[in-house]
Amino acid sequence: MDGTMKAIVKHHQGEGAQLQEVPIPAIRENEVLIKVKATSICGTDVHIYNWDEWSASRVHTPYVFGHEFAGEVVEIGEHVTMVDVGDYVSAETHIVCHKCPQCLTGQYHICENTQIIGVDTQGCFAEYVALPESNLWVNPSDMPTDIASVQEPMGNAVHTVLNGEVAGKNVAIIGCGPIGLMAVGVAKAAGASQVLAFDVNPYRLQLAEQMGATTVIHSGNEDPVERAKSLTNEHGVDVVCEMSGHPKAMDQGFKMITNGGRVSILSLPVRPVTLDVTNDIVFKGVQVQGITGRKMFKTWQQVSRLLQSKQVDLAPIITHHLPLEEFEKGFSLMNAGQCGKVVLHPNE
Amino acid sequence: MDGTMKAIVKHHQGEGAQLQEVPIPAIRENEVLIKVKATSICGTDVHIYNWDEWSASRVHTPYVFGHEFAGEVVEIGEHVTMVDVGDYVSAETHIVCHKCPQCLTGQYHICENTQIIGVDTQGCFAEYVALPESNLWVNPSDMPTDIASVQEPMGNAVHTVLNGEVAGKNVAIIGCGPIGLMAVGVAKAAGASQVLAFDVNPYRLQLAEQMGATTVIHSGNEDPVERAKSLTNEHGVDVVCEMSGHPKAMDQGFKMITNGGRVSILSLPVRPVTLDVTNDIVFKGVQVQGITGRKMFKTWQQVSRLLQSKQVDLAPIITHHLPLEEFEKGFSLMNAGQCGKVVLHPNE
Amino acid sequence: MDGTMKAIVKHHQGEGAQLQEVPIPAIRENEVLIKVKATSICGTDVHIYNWDEWSASRVHTPYVFGHEFAGEVVEIGEHVTMVDVGDYVSAETHIVCHKCPQCLTGQYHICENTQIIGVDTQGCFAEYVALPESNLWVNPSDMPTDIASVQEPMGNAVHTVLNGEVAGKNVAIIGCGPIGLMAVGVAKAAGASQVLAFDVNPYRLQLAEQMGATTVIHSGNEDPVERAKSLTNEHGVDVVCEMSGHPKAMDQGFKMITNGGRVSILSLPVRPVTLDVTNDIVFKGVQVQGITGRKMFKTWQQVSRLLQSKQVDLAPIITHHLPLEEFEKGFSLMNAGQCGKVVLHPNE
Amino acid sequence: MDGTMKAIVKHHQGEGAQLQEVPIPAIRENEVLIKVKATSICGTDVHIYNWDEWSASRVHTPYVFGHEFAGEVVEIGEHVTMVDVGDYVSAETHIVCHKCPQCLTGQYHICENTQIIGVDTQGCFAEYVALPESNLWVNPSDMPTDIASVQEPMGNAVHTVLNGEVAGKNVAIIGCGPIGLMAVGVAKAAGASQVLAFDVNPYRLQLAEQMGATTVIHSGNEDPVERAKSLTNEHGVDVVCEMSGHPKAMDQGFKMITNGGRVSILSLPVRPVTLDVTNDIVFKGVQVQGITGRKMFKTWQQVSRLLQSKQVDLAPIITHHLPLEEFEKGFSLMNAGQCGKVVLHPNE
Repeated sequence: MDGTMKAIVKHHQGEGAQLQEVPIPAIRENEVLIKVKATSICGTDVHIYNWDEWSASRVHTPYVFGHEFAGEVVEIGEHVTMVDVGDYVSAETHIVCHKCPQCLTGQYHICENTQIIGVDTQGCFAEYVALPESNLWVNPSDMPTDIASVQEPMGNAVHTVLNGEVAGKNVAIIGCGPIGLMAVGVAKAAGASQVLAFDVNPYRLQLAEQMGATTVIHSGNEDPVERAKSLTNEHGVDVVCEMSGHPKAMDQGFKMITNGGRVSILSLPVRPVTLDVTNDIVFKGVQVQGITGRKMFKTWQQVSRLLQSKQVDLAPIITHHLPLEEFEKGFSLMNAGQCGKVVLHPNE
Repeated sequence: MDGTMKAIVKHHQGEGAQLQEVPIPAIRENEVLIKVKATSICGTDVHIYNWDEWSASRVHTPYVFGHEFAGEVVEIGEHVTMVDVGDYVSAETHIVCHKCPQCLTGQYHICENTQIIGVDTQGCFAEYVALPESNLWVNPSDMPTDIASVQEPMGNAVHTVLNGEVAGKNVAIIGCGPIGLMAVGVAKAAGASQVLAFDVNPYRLQLAEQMGATTVIHSGNEDPVERAKSLTNEHGVDVVCEMSGHPKAMDQGFKMITNGGRVSILSLPVRPVTLDVTNDIVFKGVQVQGITGRKMFKTWQQVSRLLQSKQVDLAPIITHHLPLEEFEKGFSLMNAGQCGKVVLHPNE
Repeated sequence: MDGTMKAIVKHHQGEGAQLQEVPIPAIRENEVLIKVKATSICGTDVHIYNWDEWSASRVHTPYVFGHEFAGEVVEIGEHVTMVDVGDYVSAETHIVCHKCPQCLTGQYHICENTQIIGVDTQGCFAEYVALPESNLWVNPSDMPTDIASVQEPMGNAVHTVLNGEVAGKNVAIIGCGPIGLMAVGVAKAAGASQVLAFDVNPYRLQLAEQMGATTVIHSGNEDPVERAKSLTNEHGVDVVCEMSGHPKAMDQGFKMITNGGRVSILSLPVRPVTLDVTNDIVFKGVQVQGITGRKMFKTWQQVSRLLQSKQVDLAPIITHHLPLEEFEKGFSLMNAGQCGKVVLHPNE
Repeated sequence: MDGTMKAIVKHHQGEGAQLQEVPIPAIRENEVLIKVKATSICGTDVHIYNWDEWSASRVHTPYVFGHEFAGEVVEIGEHVTMVDVGDYVSAETHIVCHKCPQCLTGQYHICENTQIIGVDTQGCFAEYVALPESNLWVNPSDMPTDIASVQEPMGNAVHTVLNGEVAGKNVAIIGCGPIGLMAVGVAKAAGASQVLAFDVNPYRLQLAEQMGATTVIHSGNEDPVERAKSLTNEHGVDVVCEMSGHPKAMDQGFKMITNGGRVSILSLPVRPVTLDVTNDIVFKGVQVQGITGRKMFKTWQQVSRLLQSKQVDLAPIITHHLPLEEFEKGFSLMNAGQCGKVVLHPNE
């Protein structure tokens, strides 16, 4: 498709971004062009917007960023066979190599050569985005575009929470950013008997309560380990989902886990973390899981069905809707932690 | 404790039972005496009451039958260390040998030498029951006695449904007797996206709906396989819990399961069953699980927590409460299929 | 590549096949042309050769059959990116759709729309074969061509045996055709403490012994269940791999399995099988697995490594090497059961 | 049994121990008295002998230490039902509470209230030892006493190595003390395609080779991570068994693990360890397992069968046999690292 489109461009090696008019991307033979209906802001986008150390080392400007979205296929490459024009899609953001041992054994989410849409390639903060067909997930036609857009981070929550038994378990969610909040809802939907939500942000703790947390705990005002123990007859919780990235909170997670429990870590602490391996992992027989991305596409199937069946309702945490032009307001809200998910609508 | 008590005695090798005054049982050194507050009627009890072929071959009359209950410990044997007088308990009904390879590897529920309370030993349809301490499960003090009594069959439902992944899956419950109805509630609580309930009894299908089934299907009036397929885009369901014991219904379960699905069989068909192993199991890569009893005591922990957290509410299916004296009415209701669980109250 | 080649053609709807000169197949954009160095005869090929009921209902003549092979890539289609000319390859024989729920969740081996090379498409009993690149597995350069050719059936054995715990277990292999013989070797390599091999063919029982069976049992001369019990202190075996397809042998498998054991069925009984579900599956808490194909490509990785590391040595069961022209001798041997694997060498 | 016996007594709060004549222990009603035929020295015993910080904080002198043994039951308490006089036994060294949530769900090895024989209670460096019957494991009568004695540490090796898939995997054993050496043999027996053994002690590396390591690597002379990578096409190993307790070696384990790999930690680093959680655990999707004790008694069953079937041969690593009186020589060998297992023989 010829012509230009509006896009949020990370235009320079520094803070901020610009709304620019750029060419509509051309598609390759195995790609499709998608008209973006909704695109949501991820914590990763905030890192790029703010231009932290990680962004400076990874991202090549200028380019269009953003990777969470829902939209409609408007053009397909000549080798495309799996989707068609008119399909309503979202996308897995890991572009994988299909050649490494992990890909060859079906573990695409830990491909050795992953590229990330909107980080290593052109993204979706725009009216159109071009993507490989093998990354697409077709949505049910009656799923609202904002919900469909946030399936990608919901996939992180589902991958983390459902990576072991949950029904009848006591689950701690440490860190109530948007993915943590989704994790609260997923744990509840999967039959957790208690869901303890930990954060230091009262706004987000209040959202955690709306998502079904049985207890919300302000980790700055109360001792998280003590609370977790007292709510579990001093035995500790069965599952910890670590989503804060704070070394201290992570250590607390290991202190509150029961013998034989599961600690699933989705967060990315910026520095190495010191852990009491002997007492908190070995003697307790704890299982620690590194969680990254979403299983392709098992996690997407779970996400789609949990949303369609209303087992999980994300409405409480999609707190803001903005036109693409007001992206700066969206990033301010994210930086202030005064929001759940912020969704931009380029074509609505 | 000296004295006599009221008990329902299977008094002869034929139909029926009698309310009799019998001695309160003496306890051995590793046993406790329990004052029964609630005791519920199981399908097995109905077989014994009706005196079918199986009962005639297994049961030695006269004896007190019944095995589901909740009550209070009133006396403990001299070697007892795990419970105390005043504890509020229910009991696992499998008395296991602790010596066979299964017991030695922690698989007590499939002990090679299992004895069943109320079948092979004196049961709990009485004011008091004597049991080994190692079979007891201590209940939370605020759990109603009728709910506590039906934890044993609820354990069968939990063992069946949670013996694999459920969240985001489409689950079929075939057979809506009391355990099937509980299974509906458990599947829903564990995050199933669809729960299809099958039976030929409209009364029980209506209870299935109350327990959260997303679709109830009368297997006599509709084609179960066709319905299951049409509700799943022709792919079939992910999980089948077979609780009917009917060869035809079991075969339908194998026809409606998706490739790679799980068929968990709790029912006990009275005769060998003919299965299309090649097309329905091998080519589809299906996993079939024989389910018996409850994991000791992992299942009990799950049951207790699902009930306490209100993730599963059994109220709709505890349909009848009767004094012990009216047991005949209870058995009539069970035989007619016009009830959920019937609970007798010997001491209330 | 232009020109003609020798191929074994299933030329008519009846018994037998013909060596013919046919055109070298043209490749499509996502395919490669492979020069076949070794190609082995599978039981499925024998069914087609003999023209049984199944073949008559499935296969469209005339066509080239055969699906097990090793060879060298000599030409690649324009979209091919994963392999190159000169690569030494074998192939997964399931061509899958990549669109059904099973494919989308990485369970390619149970794709709802599988086509089988050499059954539904042109095969490899020829000098050249054209195949989709996504079916290829690259072999280590020093693997002998006959070994590389039989990796496909070895994959069935590995998929069956390793689909659960094996180390320190007592394993029964029922049916000692080539895949059963491979399964004996795999079970031994994976740490089984006993490997009991059952068949009625003394030639194959003798091969089973060479592959490492700790006991070989002639099921016609001895009572298989009794022997299995007596070798396991009357507890039964932990794992049964059913590879015979005989209803009676399958039933014996269920009788010899211990409580909580695993019965993995790879065989394809021609008729429905009657099983004592209540006593042999439910009360024993047995797990039954339908096994089909090979996990793509997890199973291939396991096969390749077990062979390269010499943990499994297939030499004893590759009993016959023939030029392509002598295929009729090969089929005679297979029909007589007087062989392990028969390998044809079209270009050697 | 009245009388006295020879025993190695940890007599004071300092280095060393003494051979003393002490009373033969009296048994309680649930205990048995065992005549010790062989008793082996564990690393824990060396800590106690040397009197390190941990010993000083945990152990109450004077007492008899030692916990690995094989012997014959010579007397049983009045409540004992599982073993009899004349039985040939070894013992699980964790005495568990049977009351905590872990015990109640069959996870005895991570009991919240574990007591360890020979650490918290009287041990087996003596002619006789008194133990609860529920800790005993009955040995096959033809198992040599030295082999039977070292089943306990072999259980640690089995628990670690077999806590996930091994067949066809590349496995690294970091730390070749006696348990690491056993782990080499277990990994090989379970079908590992490569077993890389790491240590800085040439004597133990040479034993690792005898136990079946495919490559032995001196971590002081070579770069362990580089070697592991180069032996695995730069992808890294699939399984790391960390048995060294050195923070640097542990970090190397996390650097050499492949994406999606398993790191099973049995060692007990004396101080907290700093790990690159983000890059070495989360992004790689690694699974970390704390391993302690042995599963009761699943691990014992595996150990016994791997030894009986000769799948694992421990002969190369039982390097020294001594009479009880020469225990000081045994501890010297252990402190010098110039031995595999040292076995004392109090009654032979």
